[in-house]
Amino acid sequence: MSRITIFEVGPRDGLQNEKQPVSLEDKLWFTRGLVQAGARELEIGAFVRAERVPQMADTDALYAALAGKTGGLGKARAWALVPNEKGLERAAAAGARNIAVFTAATDGFANANIGMTVRESLALYKTLIPQARKLGMRVRGYVSTAFGCPYEGKVAPAKALKVIDQLLKWDVEQVSVGDTIGVATPGDVTKLMGPLMKRVRGKAALKVAGHFHDTRGTALANALQALELGVTTLDSSAGGLGGCPYAPGATGNLATEDLVYLLHGMGLKTGFDLDALSTLSVEMSRRMNRALTSRYVAAWAAGRARAAAAKSAPKGSAP
Amino acid sequence: MSRITIFEVGPRDGLQNEKQPVSLEDKLWFTRGLVQAGARELEIGAFVRAERVPQMADTDALYAALAGKTGGLGKARAWALVPNEKGLERAAAAGARNIAVFTAATDGFANANIGMTVRESLALYKTLIPQARKLGMRVRGYVSTAFGCPYEGKVAPAKALKVIDQLLKWDVEQVSVGDTIGVATPGDVTKLMGPLMKRVRGKAALKVAGHFHDTRGTALANALQALELGVTTLDSSAGGLGGCPYAPGATGNLATEDLVYLLHGMGLKTGFDLDALSTLSVEMSRRMNRALTSRYVAAWAAGRARAAAAKSAPKGSAP
Repeated sequence: MSRITIFEVGPRDGLQNEKQPVSLEDKLWFTRGLVQAGARELEIGAFVRAERVPQMADTDALYAALAGKTGGLGKARAWALVPNEKGLERAAAAGARNIAVFTAATDGFANANIGMTVRESLALYKTLIPQARKLGMRVRGYVSTAFGCPYEGKVAPAKALKVIDQLLKWDVEQVSVGDTIGVATPGDVTKLMGPLMKRVRGKAALKVAGHFHDTRGTALANALQALELGVTTLDSSAGGLGGCPYAPGATGNLATEDLVYLLHGMGLKTGFDLDALSTLSVEMSRRMNRALTSRYVAAWAAGRARAAAAKSAPKGSAP
Repeated sequence: MSRITIFEVGPRDGLQNEKQPVSLEDKLWFTRGLVQAGARELEIGAFVRAERVPQMADTDALYAALAGKTGGLGKARAWALVPNEKGLERAAAAGARNIAVFTAATDGFANANIGMTVRESLALYKTLIPQARKLGMRVRGYVSTAFGCPYEGKVAPAKALKVIDQLLKWDVEQVSVGDTIGVATPGDVTKLMGPLMKRVRGKAALKVAGHFHDTRGTALANALQALELGVTTLDSSAGGLGGCPYAPGATGNLATEDLVYLLHGMGLKTGFDLDALSTLSVEMSRRMNRALTSRYVAAWAAGRARAAAAKSAPKGSAP
């Protein structure tokens, strides 16, 4: 294991809760910048009802602008959430090749997030996934609240595994195991992802991703634990943008920069250019008028400010 | 390994850089509160020159107030920094039983922090440590910039080990290995602390502590790695207060709350009451008019605010 795939969720998960509309132009600029900074798997939007998530209303337009050789995606794969058949139709019409379906380990969260029980959502995906596969699409599955739920508390590993197993059986490209409210600690990661990784040994290990939130500061420690269990794909959001609107207190996606810094420091490759990525996140946060939560970016920006101050200081001045 | 010792540095490392004076009353309140929340090893001050670190000018008074059965320390041990013979005299006069000496792995940082080369500092401690031991004091040794230095960049493990080895030879209670500017990643922790823990096997493992800064978000991941190498003492600061004045960009001590949350989640005992500690840190930050960096405390405070709002909402009102 010398290369880790970072699944960048910033353009979707990072933006979807912003009340101030982010322009299509800024979304395009952000997405293309992420590709230039090294992202190869990007979640850029959601084919959901515009009145439900206004910020994602222009996902179709985003796909149109990114299409083709000059669209700016290059070799990167764009992904978008699809909640139902209507969403799948829109995804197909927009030319989406990679979609994500989403459920949860707990009914409490599933009800709040998608208005269905877990069982109901799986019944839906049982037909939706084959439909998408027939259209030649890759399908990713999200299992939220895999460690803890804002409505039901701690989640037993067996409960989350049952949902994950079901999705894996349905020929999904990958299941992303989500600590939606950021309550997991490394022991929890081992209890859930240890058995899971044993089931998907070898190349099939690509079938599992870890999606950790930094709400209580544990995301990188959990990511480290997942790596040690053989996980090779980790979800994160540039600058640490985003969270989840239906999980009270669930601020804090793991910041891509913090993750890249850790991985590069451990001699692992990600394909990301950390300077380019940090520059992008800082400018995006300026355009969104929103503070970033990435600790790496804060240290990086402070370092740049000091370097600039030192450079502009008149010669011979006292330090 | 089922119990981890947290060495709480908030009253010293957390306060020393504050430009607004923190009153003796607040320091006493904070220190006693930490003991009540479960701290058993606390660094409460420094016997350094008041004009150098004004915030530590009242360390003698703090010791006087905390002395005796009604002082509030209970079974906890108070520690203070001692830079030289003059400091040792003050420590002895104040009744200090536990002192810490401090050097670094790099001359650049040692010069900036203590005005000596590493070699000069070790020459000083070679006589200072036995003097303190003769007075019946326990001595802790800090090795700053053990992973990276703001002036010299990345530090080779062998370079840091040389300084650590020297202190261990001189009968110190414990050496605290510091990632002063928060640049280490878990691989670096293994490279330095792996060989170190092999040297101090068994009970002597108590002789090593990890002191990680969260500047780039990696402190908890590094702490996790240190635990796996057998380290059983970790330094942290309540609320994440503090950093180091001589290390540009070195914001962010690891927050005690984040560490306790991780450890308790992993089934390890610390003796801390996380609610009591968070309550204390929030009130201390209010008294200091300073934002906390602990992610756990931010999530905890948001949860409390929501609970209070729910409780005070009139019955039957819309959610």
